[in-house]
Amino acid sequence: MLLAALQMQSSPSDVAANLDRLDRAAAEAAANGAGILVTPELCLVGYGAGPDLPLLAEPADGPLADRVAAVAGRHSLGIVAGFAERDGDAVYNSALWVGGDSRAVYRKSHLYGPYERHWFRAASPSAVVVRQGGLTLGLLICYDVEFPENVRRLAKAGVDAVVVPTALPIGASADFIAAHMIAVRAFENQVFVAYVDNCGRDGDFAYAGLTRIAAPDGTILAASRDRGEALVFARIEPEAYARSRAENTYLADLRD
Amino acid sequence: MLLAALQMQSSPSDVAANLDRLDRAAAEAAANGAGILVTPELCLVGYGAGPDLPLLAEPADGPLADRVAAVAGRHSLGIVAGFAERDGDAVYNSALWVGGDSRAVYRKSHLYGPYERHWFRAASPSAVVVRQGGLTLGLLICYDVEFPENVRRLAKAGVDAVVVPTALPIGASADFIAAHMIAVRAFENQVFVAYVDNCGRDGDFAYAGLTRIAAPDGTILAASRDRGEALVFARIEPEAYARSRAENTYLADLRD
Repeated sequence: MLLAALQMQSSPSDVAANLDRLDRAAAEAAANGAGILVTPELCLVGYGAGPDLPLLAEPADGPLADRVAAVAGRHSLGIVAGFAERDGDAVYNSALWVGGDSRAVYRKSHLYGPYERHWFRAASPSAVVVRQGGLTLGLLICYDVEFPENVRRLAKAGVDAVVVPTALPIGASADFIAAHMIAVRAFENQVFVAYVDNCGRDGDFAYAGLTRIAAPDGTILAASRDRGEALVFARIEPEAYARSRAENTYLADLRD
Repeated sequence: MLLAALQMQSSPSDVAANLDRLDRAAAEAAANGAGILVTPELCLVGYGAGPDLPLLAEPADGPLADRVAAVAGRHSLGIVAGFAERDGDAVYNSALWVGGDSRAVYRKSHLYGPYERHWFRAASPSAVVVRQGGLTLGLLICYDVEFPENVRRLAKAGVDAVVVPTALPIGASADFIAAHMIAVRAFENQVFVAYVDNCGRDGDFAYAGLTRIAAPDGTILAASRDRGEALVFARIEPEAYARSRAENTYLADLRD
């Protein structure tokens, strides 16, 4: 299964423009043979949309999700897309999954910093697992993946890959996370990790553009070459890493 | 507080030779101003001692521990040293701490591979914490540190540094662990990690000699330059990393 990751410059508050960008990326991903397209955190509304976030928030079965499903259907892809999710009074920082007839939503459990804590409600940690083309995928968002507990939860649930829309700001921590942490999360759980970043600027935020796809043996299969927009691809083939899993039996050996 | 790490070629089954090596390293460490000396997994008996391991195993308050305490006292150091520990019928892969009037023993909870599982009993995971010169240290051994749960347990117990005697064999996993995992364990918990390897060959084992000391911000403060014996030093000053801890608030933000 080929996975495409869209490092994207989102247009804050301009959902139509972001959906159009998603549609063009889905066309390119499908033309290259991808079966899954992963996009950045909150990319449908813009991470930096601030006061517009509650206004743009929609339920998981609302019109925005229908439009993403239409894109996925048109290009025969599964899509992971970040959006602001409304559930009654609550607004969550969420990732929508659409693939065939299947839909799911993952709500971010570990909000980062005062901006996110102001605009979003933190969800309880959860294991949202979806299936596409024989693969099992688990969802996290950005800061969630920096906590080993969250990736372990998905690994214990049996996922082949963890997909992580993110909005990593430029800085020393960003460089460390991209250079070391993503690969370690993959290796210590023997899963793939697709970490898909925003890029460019919006509002007060400047993104690092550090999209990375790591394999179970810790190798980086795909990476954005610079801080600009990019569509990168990696083949997610668990059977190709049987030797790594046989040598690094962390899940079998873990004693809690 | 200056910490010294001895990357050591142990002599299998020759406890007197290993104690002599420890004494010389302690003299050199103390002469350089170190207050703590960390040595490799099982270095007092030799990781590869095989059938001799149960014969060489001693209780935590036995003559071997007294001799290590004498070395520590002679050079006014705290010492972490790997040994085979006997407790009734059980033999553990343990690390002894001696420092001033304080003694403690940590028993390895995550045994690696059939060799260790043959010769040792796995202990339940535990948080063994000791104090030296204003620092709080937690103990793990080798494979233990590859599980984020074990380092997190010590971080939650409030340690400044995790010290890890190890016996990392040459191989791709060893290179990954030294290049990425040790730094990530430090960063994700905002603690120091001193990972102190065997070197050379003994019995069926060839060690990677990949001693590393990582700071809370993920930088490598000290590393062995090659696969041979080495005494390396790093200053363990938590107050120098206050900014990293303020920026990377993983322990405060973790939601289980």
